[in-house]
Amino acid sequence: MRNVQANVCGALEALERELGSDRSFVSDAWTRPGGGGGVSRVLQDGAILEKAGVNVSEVYGELSQAFAAKLPGTGRQFYATGVSLVLHPRNPYVPTVHANFRYLEQGERRWFGGGSDLTPYYFFAEDKSHFHGVWRDVCERHHEVANYASFRDACERYFYLPHRGEVRGVGGIFFDDVEAVHGDVDREDALLAFVSAGGAAILDAYLPIVRRRMHTPWGDRERNWQLLRRGRYVEFNLLYDRGTTFGLQTGGRTESILMSLPPLVRWGYDESPSPGSPEAALLDQLRRAEPP
Amino acid sequence: MRNVQANVCGALEALERELGSDRSFVSDAWTRPGGGGGVSRVLQDGAILEKAGVNVSEVYGELSQAFAAKLPGTGRQFYATGVSLVLHPRNPYVPTVHANFRYLEQGERRWFGGGSDLTPYYFFAEDKSHFHGVWRDVCERHHEVANYASFRDACERYFYLPHRGEVRGVGGIFFDDVEAVHGDVDREDALLAFVSAGGAAILDAYLPIVRRRMHTPWGDRERNWQLLRRGRYVEFNLLYDRGTTFGLQTGGRTESILMSLPPLVRWGYDESPSPGSPEAALLDQLRRAEPP
Repeated sequence: MRNVQANVCGALEALERELGSDRSFVSDAWTRPGGGGGVSRVLQDGAILEKAGVNVSEVYGELSQAFAAKLPGTGRQFYATGVSLVLHPRNPYVPTVHANFRYLEQGERRWFGGGSDLTPYYFFAEDKSHFHGVWRDVCERHHEVANYASFRDACERYFYLPHRGEVRGVGGIFFDDVEAVHGDVDREDALLAFVSAGGAAILDAYLPIVRRRMHTPWGDRERNWQLLRRGRYVEFNLLYDRGTTFGLQTGGRTESILMSLPPLVRWGYDESPSPGSPEAALLDQLRRAEPP
Repeated sequence: MRNVQANVCGALEALERELGSDRSFVSDAWTRPGGGGGVSRVLQDGAILEKAGVNVSEVYGELSQAFAAKLPGTGRQFYATGVSLVLHPRNPYVPTVHANFRYLEQGERRWFGGGSDLTPYYFFAEDKSHFHGVWRDVCERHHEVANYASFRDACERYFYLPHRGEVRGVGGIFFDDVEAVHGDVDREDALLAFVSAGGAAILDAYLPIVRRRMHTPWGDRERNWQLLRRGRYVEFNLLYDRGTTFGLQTGGRTESILMSLPPLVRWGYDESPSPGSPEAALLDQLRRAEPP
């Protein structure tokens, strides 16, 4: 998990330097009173990244009875480790990306969860296709434990905003509660290999898209649209995202949890793009007449 | 309710004209498929008000079984009417205000709810004192049904953000489920009189504060702080506000419900004001070591 954090942050800093920015990630180590802790790394006001947060954590100890009952394992002893990141670029033609990979133990049960999804402000079929292609490859290389089609569909269902009738972005993969039976060392190894490959694939999935779009000129129109769409990101994370609401409700570190929120956001009243515009073309991709 | 809307919007438009702005409220009438509807009025980009929303609604019909079971009345027939407003000023020295008054019938049961609270970006004791004074007076004039001290405490408890250890603002009044027993005409009249007085008091509670602060000069520092604090407003409304989450979950009109969100919002990472600064003085007022 720490390797993923180091690699992603290193590559993003190199990209910032390429564009003449000297911004780098600032590290914040924190400890959890009940056991464990983590490191939050944040870069703000870069040339490419307006705000980027990459979090690792490794926490363990005893769960409250109420909390333990909500989890699929047994007993109150737990161990959890994970890496999560959200990158909010400045250029509206560069999409936002989110990725998260986690491993949990509770009693005899061990399980994995995570995924990665792409949230563009303007739709480019080739970006979606590249992003999905990388994740499909990772899943196919780990087909004993991963299934691209079902993870893709789960992503579509998870990142849905019912009050908007929209999905958050153009998807990716999402998996939850993928179990490793205790003692089944082969399956545990296969899952660990899949999640490690996932961590390593984040840059492959995202950087080529950044490089393709980062020099596209933009102005007030694109910026206004980006800020409005970022509002949907906030709405999803605060209204529906299980990690966010669960984390806040169980006394997680607020600043690390809400690192995912965009740096600047706008809410207008009942704004919708003109038919036929590039902004409307994005909505055509995201709207769902019924829940996925 | 429509009178309150007309009076508030009229007074705010007059104030905008005083400052040389020609912005006025735009009206949006909507109907509810199951019965009733409402009118949303919004003013954006004014000289004083960056975004103001004033909503009235009158809806009735049949509740779903699940929804009906969550409400305190009996049966599935309902009637509800209310006015709600949120005013987000541009000048960071002018506080944001929220007010909401509603009346509901379900079967034989009738009840009232509502309140008003003030969210400053900079703390002025005289503003808090004026605001609370107006609401205390309204409650005292309607003491048969209203109790300032208990409504003030309920406001403090309601507008609390546990993940921040802060209350949203400097309070006001909040009351929920104040019942009018069917057939007790005196009590029903008294409640109606209180809620009408509440609607009429919004301008008395808020406008003197606006006039006192609207000419205070401000710059980037104050603006950045205002945008950061607006983030707390969004967090409260999307994570905790019952009206917002309930409305969205039960298929209310999204744009009218989310009219309350600020026009422009910023999320930084782990920002806190320097000790002794005016920004820190606000936090001193809002922080609570334990839930109120």
